[in-house]
Amino acid sequence: MSSMNIPQSSFPRVIVIGGGFGGIALAKKLSKKDIQVVLLDKHNYHTFQPLLYQVSTGGLEPDSIAYPIRKVLQGYPNFYFRLAEVSRIDTALRKLETNIGDIQYDYLVIATGTETNYFGNKNIEEKGMAMKTIPQSLNLRSLILENFEQALLTDDLHERDALMNFVIVGGGPTGVELAGALAEIKKGILPKDYPDLDTRRAQINLVQGSDRILPAMSEIASSKAERFLEGLGVHVWKDIRVTDYDGKHVTTDTDISFEAATLVWAAGVKAVCIKGLDADDLLCRGNRLKVNRFHQVEGFQEIFAIGDVGQMETEAFPHGHPMMAQPAIQQGENLGENLVKLVENKPMKPFVYRDKGSMATVGRNKAVVDLPKFKFQGVFAWFVWMFVHLYFLIGFRNRVVVFINWVYNYIRFDREARLIIRPFKKTYQVSKSRKAVS
Amino acid sequence: MSSMNIPQSSFPRVIVIGGGFGGIALAKKLSKKDIQVVLLDKHNYHTFQPLLYQVSTGGLEPDSIAYPIRKVLQGYPNFYFRLAEVSRIDTALRKLETNIGDIQYDYLVIATGTETNYFGNKNIEEKGMAMKTIPQSLNLRSLILENFEQALLTDDLHERDALMNFVIVGGGPTGVELAGALAEIKKGILPKDYPDLDTRRAQINLVQGSDRILPAMSEIASSKAERFLEGLGVHVWKDIRVTDYDGKHVTTDTDISFEAATLVWAAGVKAVCIKGLDADDLLCRGNRLKVNRFHQVEGFQEIFAIGDVGQMETEAFPHGHPMMAQPAIQQGENLGENLVKLVENKPMKPFVYRDKGSMATVGRNKAVVDLPKFKFQGVFAWFVWMFVHLYFLIGFRNRVVVFINWVYNYIRFDREARLIIRPFKKTYQVSKSRKAVS
Repeated sequence: MSSMNIPQSSFPRVIVIGGGFGGIALAKKLSKKDIQVVLLDKHNYHTFQPLLYQVSTGGLEPDSIAYPIRKVLQGYPNFYFRLAEVSRIDTALRKLETNIGDIQYDYLVIATGTETNYFGNKNIEEKGMAMKTIPQSLNLRSLILENFEQALLTDDLHERDALMNFVIVGGGPTGVELAGALAEIKKGILPKDYPDLDTRRAQINLVQGSDRILPAMSEIASSKAERFLEGLGVHVWKDIRVTDYDGKHVTTDTDISFEAATLVWAAGVKAVCIKGLDADDLLCRGNRLKVNRFHQVEGFQEIFAIGDVGQMETEAFPHGHPMMAQPAIQQGENLGENLVKLVENKPMKPFVYRDKGSMATVGRNKAVVDLPKFKFQGVFAWFVWMFVHLYFLIGFRNRVVVFINWVYNYIRFDREARLIIRPFKKTYQVSKSRKAVS
Repeated sequence: MSSMNIPQSSFPRVIVIGGGFGGIALAKKLSKKDIQVVLLDKHNYHTFQPLLYQVSTGGLEPDSIAYPIRKVLQGYPNFYFRLAEVSRIDTALRKLETNIGDIQYDYLVIATGTETNYFGNKNIEEKGMAMKTIPQSLNLRSLILENFEQALLTDDLHERDALMNFVIVGGGPTGVELAGALAEIKKGILPKDYPDLDTRRAQINLVQGSDRILPAMSEIASSKAERFLEGLGVHVWKDIRVTDYDGKHVTTDTDISFEAATLVWAAGVKAVCIKGLDADDLLCRGNRLKVNRFHQVEGFQEIFAIGDVGQMETEAFPHGHPMMAQPAIQQGENLGENLVKLVENKPMKPFVYRDKGSMATVGRNKAVVDLPKFKFQGVFAWFVWMFVHLYFLIGFRNRVVVFINWVYNYIRFDREARLIIRPFKKTYQVSKSRKAVS
């Protein structure tokens, strides 16, 4: 027995670090094979990250976009899940060190994904909000609601405005979708919830460092999304980089500045590194691990990296595949099949990415879709976006609950999960009130 | 303007402390009247407490049993909600002191409900779990799941058993319903989620201080509920009082003791007191405030107490009405109508409680119902229990989401919200593992 109480078996042991899109897709391919699979994750659930912004904005609850990893693995023989954080890889001894003990591997798959990259800006890291995990998304939800409750308590118009203002940094899908959702809340919910507050003054600013939002999509998608956002009242700022934030004042590399009690940082990610593999020559920009066409980390036969954390440089994708769900899923499936081949001493199949396109939603009836051969925007795109997201959600119950919530929110212009379950208390205090709302 | 930014109006101001069943029922009766209503609560949502045990056991998410108070009050003119904690009542100046400033009242309604009563036992308060609020229920959910993850890591059978054992103290509806739900999880989910753990060894103990569980219900309900629980494998202990707990060892006033990493204390409540009104002569047993037939707190014309916090001693109920949703709702409605009469200088109507009965559920197809003239148990009682709970849930979307989840859980013998969103980390460490799972 290892110290994790996982029995030794005659089958080779594959350890997968991370139960995201890549890790789960891989695990499913290894079910019912003569391979022992140990899946490690620091959460006991898989997170459907594309819908985190709906958790932050009170449209969905965590359970509808999270799925117990143990349930995914139910009925798979030779599968072991452990709630663990990996601290180091000992590549010489083929051993992982974790907070619940050490464990040997025959094959190791790193599928740890990404975390927020603040590019060294400690102030933004401390005072700003991220939206990469469910707890972070719930914190953001609490903060937004707390700020509006605080805004009621001050007569200082300057301060009140700051409490109602949002700065979202980063014009990728996360930033665009969050900005659109906030704009809809501003229009549909705030005036009814806060009749004694002039919520029309609330400003939603989306700040993008380059010359267009959704830079990974087509130009038509970018310009349509921008027009959709502006139609919803979002201020889109381009070619501006946020440089600092003290919890209230947002400074940029231009003479434009903002006053906002809520800053959401969605302007960068970096792959999650594990000690023991972080030699400079293995890492690309953003901490990604260089891998070959079989997902093998450079210099290792038995260590693989898939999803956001792996960087496979191909002719079509000289800087690696996009950091999205689709490449992670396809890589997980490919590697799963290859591991079976490897164990059976058959030749592995190099990975080929089938681009299925990308999409982003701005608001009701407003989405942009880029398919490889066809691009469209608007109502139909919005229905496609919903259908695809429901399809890729794990779990029948999750799909039904999300669908019901979407129908309800659509018909009623509402989002009922606007609950401060765990107060976040990061907001600055209004000068007139003597103590924080707790 | 008060320091809470609530405008002075020509209407009398009623302040309601607490957005529970009583406070919300009262507020609804005051809509569209010439009365300014200020509702204060430390949460921004109403909690449907009877279903908290389903949040703890992963059957439901918070949003389906919580409802934004601001949404309840949407469209009511002259209504103000503030997220605030009241620290003191100044009865002489008719003023409340809160964490967001002071505020004057013309009429004050105390509807603060109850909190857990540990009867001075600091160890149980520190090491045990309560289930009176949504955050507490989520903490209990996390702890239960964390304990099973920990149980996997030890080879010490004694320790492993303790991690899988539950002691629920208090045989009222909360204790009975939680014990039943845990028994169903033990049977339906644990063996599939933890195939490498002998989950049959998990023990669910329900400890009741008196000679029958559900003592507020009929004898037939008590005995049937006990039989249902035992059929599910719950150990029901009667005439035993838990005296101490160190996080692992549970001692009682007999020579029976338990080893359990999870102790849930559902054995007592006390009314939530606010300073300024806690003169001994106003308080009954359990901190309740003595009130007359018009809910007026003894000695005051303008201060009222409803729901669990008020004790109205009548011939039928010499120790006050039962501390349940129904009396609170009826009292809220009665006081709401009376406040309108009071403002219009009409005579108030004394409160008469219409007993609609009580009920508790043990598990699938197993519930007990006492109606005033009719008592029944089993499948039909279970359907009645579900119907009544869906009916009293606030919000159409909540009803649909709860219903969908119940249908799914019933058909699939499942509870998918078994997510450790916020780790609780109160569990003791198994000796072999070197660090807590974080």
